[in-house]
Amino acid sequence: MEGKEEDVHLGANKYRERQPIGTAAQVPDKDYQEPPPAPLFEPSELSSWSFYRAGIAEFIATFLFLYVTVLTVMGVVKSPTKCSTVGIQGIAWAFGGMIFALVYCTAGISGGHINPAVTFGLFLARKLSLTRALYYMVMQCLGAICGAGVVRGFEGGTQYKLAGGGANTIAHGYTKGDGLGAEIIGTFVLVYTVFSATDAKRSARDSHVPILAPLPIGFAVFLVHLATIPITGTGINPARSLGAAIIYNKDHAWNDHWVFWVGPFIGAALAALYHQVVIRAIPFKNK
Amino acid sequence: MEGKEEDVHLGANKYRERQPIGTAAQVPDKDYQEPPPAPLFEPSELSSWSFYRAGIAEFIATFLFLYVTVLTVMGVVKSPTKCSTVGIQGIAWAFGGMIFALVYCTAGISGGHINPAVTFGLFLARKLSLTRALYYMVMQCLGAICGAGVVRGFEGGTQYKLAGGGANTIAHGYTKGDGLGAEIIGTFVLVYTVFSATDAKRSARDSHVPILAPLPIGFAVFLVHLATIPITGTGINPARSLGAAIIYNKDHAWNDHWVFWVGPFIGAALAALYHQVVIRAIPFKNK
Amino acid sequence: MEGKEEDVHLGANKYRERQPIGTAAQVPDKDYQEPPPAPLFEPSELSSWSFYRAGIAEFIATFLFLYVTVLTVMGVVKSPTKCSTVGIQGIAWAFGGMIFALVYCTAGISGGHINPAVTFGLFLARKLSLTRALYYMVMQCLGAICGAGVVRGFEGGTQYKLAGGGANTIAHGYTKGDGLGAEIIGTFVLVYTVFSATDAKRSARDSHVPILAPLPIGFAVFLVHLATIPITGTGINPARSLGAAIIYNKDHAWNDHWVFWVGPFIGAALAALYHQVVIRAIPFKNK
Amino acid sequence: MEGKEEDVHLGANKYRERQPIGTAAQVPDKDYQEPPPAPLFEPSELSSWSFYRAGIAEFIATFLFLYVTVLTVMGVVKSPTKCSTVGIQGIAWAFGGMIFALVYCTAGISGGHINPAVTFGLFLARKLSLTRALYYMVMQCLGAICGAGVVRGFEGGTQYKLAGGGANTIAHGYTKGDGLGAEIIGTFVLVYTVFSATDAKRSARDSHVPILAPLPIGFAVFLVHLATIPITGTGINPARSLGAAIIYNKDHAWNDHWVFWVGPFIGAALAALYHQVVIRAIPFKNK
Repeated sequence: MEGKEEDVHLGANKYRERQPIGTAAQVPDKDYQEPPPAPLFEPSELSSWSFYRAGIAEFIATFLFLYVTVLTVMGVVKSPTKCSTVGIQGIAWAFGGMIFALVYCTAGISGGHINPAVTFGLFLARKLSLTRALYYMVMQCLGAICGAGVVRGFEGGTQYKLAGGGANTIAHGYTKGDGLGAEIIGTFVLVYTVFSATDAKRSARDSHVPILAPLPIGFAVFLVHLATIPITGTGINPARSLGAAIIYNKDHAWNDHWVFWVGPFIGAALAALYHQVVIRAIPFKNK
Repeated sequence: MEGKEEDVHLGANKYRERQPIGTAAQVPDKDYQEPPPAPLFEPSELSSWSFYRAGIAEFIATFLFLYVTVLTVMGVVKSPTKCSTVGIQGIAWAFGGMIFALVYCTAGISGGHINPAVTFGLFLARKLSLTRALYYMVMQCLGAICGAGVVRGFEGGTQYKLAGGGANTIAHGYTKGDGLGAEIIGTFVLVYTVFSATDAKRSARDSHVPILAPLPIGFAVFLVHLATIPITGTGINPARSLGAAIIYNKDHAWNDHWVFWVGPFIGAALAALYHQVVIRAIPFKNK
Repeated sequence: MEGKEEDVHLGANKYRERQPIGTAAQVPDKDYQEPPPAPLFEPSELSSWSFYRAGIAEFIATFLFLYVTVLTVMGVVKSPTKCSTVGIQGIAWAFGGMIFALVYCTAGISGGHINPAVTFGLFLARKLSLTRALYYMVMQCLGAICGAGVVRGFEGGTQYKLAGGGANTIAHGYTKGDGLGAEIIGTFVLVYTVFSATDAKRSARDSHVPILAPLPIGFAVFLVHLATIPITGTGINPARSLGAAIIYNKDHAWNDHWVFWVGPFIGAALAALYHQVVIRAIPFKNK
Repeated sequence: MEGKEEDVHLGANKYRERQPIGTAAQVPDKDYQEPPPAPLFEPSELSSWSFYRAGIAEFIATFLFLYVTVLTVMGVVKSPTKCSTVGIQGIAWAFGGMIFALVYCTAGISGGHINPAVTFGLFLARKLSLTRALYYMVMQCLGAICGAGVVRGFEGGTQYKLAGGGANTIAHGYTKGDGLGAEIIGTFVLVYTVFSATDAKRSARDSHVPILAPLPIGFAVFLVHLATIPITGTGINPARSLGAAIIYNKDHAWNDHWVFWVGPFIGAALAALYHQVVIRAIPFKNK
């Protein structure tokens, strides 16, 4: 692979025309523009209304996300027979479907993260400033706490605690290592899809990707839930885990809680690394 | 945030290019045209065939909506074992899926409301005249009554009443306040999605949104049903609640009935407020 | 409504810009071209390869449709406990999903009917010649018989008969009138969606509709199955009903069989009428 | 059909404008360009970074595919009551949904095959070189083995073996011939959809197909699983079958294993034949 920097540099897939699925339109080299990396701190951001509006949108979206999903979880867990509920599959649809709908709604306002792990991954790729990343994470966590809180208000404290409150814990039969691994790979699937869907190169070739992007992103969340609900209940979103844990507030949820921050952040970092280094080869382009 | 009216006025997201998901295409400022607010009364409307056609389309759509959804509910509720039916999740798909298909079909004819709460929200945002709003609501309610009536015709009156007739009531274990709250937030999710999907600004940037718009709107309905079927059976559509209540016609459905008008209308108003004031900052633009 | 022919003639929705969901792009009047009605007989068609290819594509599509759906039905019906199968909801997905995938695949070859009722509705609207319509129907029925036959080959005759063979019959507790009504309204939903998705006017405004059209059409089939599987097993496709009936070949399936031809054809005719007369007002335009 | 080579040669559907669903836009004849067939060996490929990157992407995608799907299978099979799991339908969603998301993510990098049968079918149609085809297949198999291995690591060896390890075997009550037939037709459905979605002619008419293509392809996988999980557990992907078999490593899985290579390869070959000969009539065009 030595001496192939030029191929990499062009960012072109030399044999593109024989790849049957995908970006078939023949485009000139380098028709897309890589936005410059976001600065770590951008003071001017702080005086713009769109900055505050983006935070509000993240708050509302994460609020609605937790409200709908934790309420769905409660409906399933409370029932003595799962068959007369929407079932575990319904829970997976609630998580994935809400991400689809909310990313669709907020993408144009805040980027539609609704998840500190997504924000972290995009920050590592220098898509937003550190200020904005921290601000988003705080708003996401606040929204999540409020969303879970409203569900507890509806269900009543006793009922809520009995039914587990939608909090993430590691199931019997699995070690903390298993749970951490499941969170890492699960978040990798999600953030890898986010990077693939929002790639500047892809946008240049087919300008409608931003419209369809929420669908595979929502599906990624749905699929990870299908697989890992039996292991951890599926976090892959530290705000969702934190919100449920604070409102539930029992020891066994807090004991495992670090897994739902460390795992998603590692998974997001690996996805950012994979996309930037392997798929886009960005580090080698500046040579 | 003082002195930032200009930023708001432009309607532009200053740091747009760093928002990875969403409207990535770089557009000049103010490339879209905000349609003027609809007048309260527009006499000329009343003499156009397209006005009456729109009402007929709303009638037919709401008729088909109630027919398919209430029939699905009956199939599930009548069966002694839920496992040999499409299940509660299938009911949620029926409601959400019908909204997807019907919005797709009628969007170009009447706007595809199929729901007085949506009509109310869009009226508050001055997207249609008061005359048209009232006309739509009447047609929606008539369609809903006929749709539920046909289901009762198929099932027979006794069977229909035993199985609850798809009417919305507040479940045991929840207060009227819980039910009202669930209806408000549920309708907020729906109408927020409608506003996001039909934003003039979004349309300008990616002209294909009207095609995809029915999908997130249908999904929003599906998701709210996943979450709140155990609480209220999920209204978020006063015509749907009214149609089922009239054909079912039992006291306990009528006692809670106001919740399914007041809740959705409050939720729709909040969504209109959120979108116009926070997201679009429209009130501040005319300064 | 007298004297409003001009409004109708233009085919324009005068108050279009205030319809929030749908074809928002502002277009000049009459930017689309209504194709001329197809002649009843078109001899030149018979000497073109694309005519025969279209029939082969309809045959293969209906073959695959019956194969996948009837096999799914067998898997569910044979199992003593529905919970360890894909369930009734899975059956509905099989029918709707196959229509989505197959319409997507064959739309460019034959129009992607895969259903004599759809062919009949489009023939009434003069979208294809009588020769082609009859040819399609024959190929669809042959494909359906082969598809069901392969399933019987896999399952064995005894097993196949015990499990009902996926044949449509009217369930206990419903009259033939109920079944007929269910088939009429169900087919109306399907063919109404087909007409809405393939409207020349809609195509002109957003040229990507043909791509998305299979999705609402598939969903319409899915939704009707959710609602009417408990009543008739859901036909809304005479080829599907015929194929299963011939391979199953028991009296009680044959006794009800006329319902699954008469119902869908009435439903398709009503949908064609509704679309041509109310939605498009085509009969009034030539005045 | 004699003397109709011209019609075939043009590749045009003479009566296109009357086909209501599908490629409605009126295009001049031959507006698309058939890429030249890929050579069997292309030495220059081997010195390009994009070639190796494509293999890595196939590896990662197949790894994630097996990880999510086998983990979902384990969650369902291990549970004493299927109702408290995502169910067999959830398994079908996991397989189809992952193909949707992964094809979406990797289409622009490697073509998004994630399946040796798809690679084989596209190779037969001369869409990629033999070198590349073999390289992809090796990477897919390696990825699949690793994915299943991680699941075994999480579940523990005993548990994994008891629950069948997601390996494909032919169920009791079905012959090897039934299983082979099911794999052939199932793979035909998948590869037929792949060919339809990636047709050069279709791409020319509606340039956005590559974006939507992953959806019908994922749905095809979902639908085949709905139908044939009770027969073979559904392979239609030799890498998936191999990966699970190697990690499971029990005699009864190995005894049937040839079915899951021979079946998919025959199905893919038939789909390639059908598309090239019947649909595109490519062999007759060079006359």
